[in-house]
Amino acid sequence: MTGDRPAAAVGSGRAPVIAGGDGDPVATEAAVAAYVAGGGYDRLPAPAVRVAKLAIRDCLGVILAGLAEPSGRIVADQVRAEAAVGTSTALGRGFTTSPAAAAFVNGTTAHALDFDDSHHPSMTHPTAVLLPALLAVAEQRASSGAELIAAYLYALDAATAIAGGINPDHYSAGWHPTATIGAIGAALGVARLLNHTAERTAHAVAIAANRASGMRSVFGSMGKAMNAGTAAQTGILAAALAERGFTGGSGVLAGFVEAHGGGALRLSHALDRSFTAAVGGLSIKRYPSCGVTQAPIEAALRLAATERVSEEIDEIICTVDPYVRRLVITHPPRTGTEARFNLEHCVTVALVDRMVGMAQFSDERVGDPRVRDLASRVRVRDRAGAAAGPDMRWPCVLRVVGTDGSAASAAVDAPAGRGFGELLPERELLAKFADCARWGGLADPEVAWLVTQLDQLETLPTVEPLTAALRRTPRRG
Amino acid sequence: MTGDRPAAAVGSGRAPVIAGGDGDPVATEAAVAAYVAGGGYDRLPAPAVRVAKLAIRDCLGVILAGLAEPSGRIVADQVRAEAAVGTSTALGRGFTTSPAAAAFVNGTTAHALDFDDSHHPSMTHPTAVLLPALLAVAEQRASSGAELIAAYLYALDAATAIAGGINPDHYSAGWHPTATIGAIGAALGVARLLNHTAERTAHAVAIAANRASGMRSVFGSMGKAMNAGTAAQTGILAAALAERGFTGGSGVLAGFVEAHGGGALRLSHALDRSFTAAVGGLSIKRYPSCGVTQAPIEAALRLAATERVSEEIDEIICTVDPYVRRLVITHPPRTGTEARFNLEHCVTVALVDRMVGMAQFSDERVGDPRVRDLASRVRVRDRAGAAAGPDMRWPCVLRVVGTDGSAASAAVDAPAGRGFGELLPERELLAKFADCARWGGLADPEVAWLVTQLDQLETLPTVEPLTAALRRTPRRG
Repeated sequence: MTGDRPAAAVGSGRAPVIAGGDGDPVATEAAVAAYVAGGGYDRLPAPAVRVAKLAIRDCLGVILAGLAEPSGRIVADQVRAEAAVGTSTALGRGFTTSPAAAAFVNGTTAHALDFDDSHHPSMTHPTAVLLPALLAVAEQRASSGAELIAAYLYALDAATAIAGGINPDHYSAGWHPTATIGAIGAALGVARLLNHTAERTAHAVAIAANRASGMRSVFGSMGKAMNAGTAAQTGILAAALAERGFTGGSGVLAGFVEAHGGGALRLSHALDRSFTAAVGGLSIKRYPSCGVTQAPIEAALRLAATERVSEEIDEIICTVDPYVRRLVITHPPRTGTEARFNLEHCVTVALVDRMVGMAQFSDERVGDPRVRDLASRVRVRDRAGAAAGPDMRWPCVLRVVGTDGSAASAAVDAPAGRGFGELLPERELLAKFADCARWGGLADPEVAWLVTQLDQLETLPTVEPLTAALRRTPRRG
Repeated sequence: MTGDRPAAAVGSGRAPVIAGGDGDPVATEAAVAAYVAGGGYDRLPAPAVRVAKLAIRDCLGVILAGLAEPSGRIVADQVRAEAAVGTSTALGRGFTTSPAAAAFVNGTTAHALDFDDSHHPSMTHPTAVLLPALLAVAEQRASSGAELIAAYLYALDAATAIAGGINPDHYSAGWHPTATIGAIGAALGVARLLNHTAERTAHAVAIAANRASGMRSVFGSMGKAMNAGTAAQTGILAAALAERGFTGGSGVLAGFVEAHGGGALRLSHALDRSFTAAVGGLSIKRYPSCGVTQAPIEAALRLAATERVSEEIDEIICTVDPYVRRLVITHPPRTGTEARFNLEHCVTVALVDRMVGMAQFSDERVGDPRVRDLASRVRVRDRAGAAAGPDMRWPCVLRVVGTDGSAASAAVDAPAGRGFGELLPERELLAKFADCARWGGLADPEVAWLVTQLDQLETLPTVEPLTAALRRTPRRG
């Protein structure tokens, strides 16, 4: 179970380094720690590195876009007042602090818009926790871009294997896996970045598992965003305490799974350095609004781009699963934040603006009489024969009827980039990043410079130029 | 449900302010917040104030005694390195920091020896969490001694009512209620100290409940001590974020209870400003060793004081419940820490030294050949007919047989000060405090000064003289 074992891939016929399944839970947690402690950059598969870099860039963009949200701003104010000493950047906030405090701020900001990536079937938002934790520590220790990527991938692999093994039970029991498993994943990643031994990594995991927190019952409050920040902060604290010799106990990860409604500790996929399940399960949202609005927006954009949609629209019929109505609940939306959970607004701005980015969810755009008028003509209908429960594909049929009697329709079975191993096209990811970064106050040359740097992240001797560039308070927010 | 309602006592025939039982959980959490937000010092019953002051003094003593333990020392080193700005004292560590960081250090130290008070039936160690949180904030805000006492009592009342209502289920599900309910109690107490409105108090509770953590599976590691520190830290952060306008969500406390295996939110006693259940359930340990060793030590001290125990002892027969063996598991003890969980050592030092305090658990005393020799002659036997599960009375019969054939025995049905509404006699509490404070490096005049100050705590205009006196690094540890 050390880093000396050759890399192996699922389905290649070679034995996995750590099998998932029904092993002894205490042995499993030791093996997870050894796997992460033994991981370096050199043997990472190139496709995994590519996805890691895209996820990291996307998350930085989402952080910039989320700077003005109150959850992250309040956490930043609290952290700034405490003024813990350190060189880790509170991104876009204009100050540095301790790694744990910076990660608390940046993680909260990363999840503030719910625009960060998600992972299936682990039911987590992994990067909004991992990146803030790793970046803050990488900045403190002058780690290289390659070390950052390796820590990200090993932690992503282990954390999604743990989360995938205990979900959906853990989620159903009331937990927010982004937060709970997030803390454990962050501890693993930071331990990797700090070159902890397997034993010290195991203590970091135990300390993090014992401190892990975050429940679904906070959804709808600022607490949801904070859960990503807390997890990042906890992961750093755990790895730092383990480095100082703090003992976290043995069997704590198994105890965590049991207490948190996950049954027994088991991994959903083998940890074998292929990273297939880890990066294949990642999905990046294209539009800064609730997940169930993605397919309707996509349908609207397709109609607006390819069909002749009448200038005078009589009505817009949006047919979705009954489950969708339980999530898009703000009628009518008064703010941009509320409009992210309003299907009528989402479809309308897609048709009118022929694009959906941060600007389509400004308070001004929500108050625009033309948008409000058209939104009032959207009818949401239940898809016949659809199940009442969640269908994570979120299918939609959109039909636009003109006052002249003309009609056009588009069907989207699942939003783009949501299938296993499928990401949005690079062009779309780049457009999202640029949109987010500009929304956060960056000028076009700064965006372009960042894109170049992040594209060659694995060659950077330290992450410092990146964090230095993102330190200042942007013009807006 | 406001502070304007008259005080009422259980059994007095007057209606309680907030009944426990089967109410709507969301209404119950709002009522708890209103109860604490509406509480002031003026109407506190004198007996409750007296117990609060004794508990506070005892906890300060235990913190001083625990300064040399590695758990608190490592946390202090981490916090010192982060150097958060603030005037709150890391007690006995020679520095000040932010309230949350100070509470993290002091709470961990308070629980490091497991010598702090406990509460039944809430199954919590309340003061090791509450006092560090409240003292750190009181120091920052220059609160008075009376305000500190009021915050302590209202939070104790509410937190033990919540914990009592969901235990033993919550405990059985794997949670460490000192940590989990501790965070909620600390948030309530700090919100009271900061004069939060009921609404803001409710947000503080929600934030704390969402961040609450701590499991039983860390018992035996430093994680157990850290759980008290984490809870104190979380309570302060939650109240501070609520003060800045952070929203924690509604129904989160009920969600917490559900996710944490507690069934539904219900209170074990009415919140009625009588504080009967809150202070009546407090129990303070006399000897700095595992709970199940308390009765055997008491029996040994009684024998040593009142019976003629032969100079030459042949064997010592210690008859206890079968459950006890599961807790006293270090054979033979190598360190003072291990000796706290070794029945043979505990009984031996009681017989030899005729007293059991911090000195009886030094590494030197554990290595003393005379102690080791006598400890080897202790035989632990199971009490006939006793249940295999925990009997929280921990009864014991001790029989000492001399080489001359003489024999003497003593039976202790339950350790002193463990019954409801029973505390150890003031003489014993004072001796414990002095022993602990001296162990922490304080000189006798300093101990005497502290006793006087704490005896008149409700008259102090600020707590600052107390914390200033406990700031410096003591001579030992």
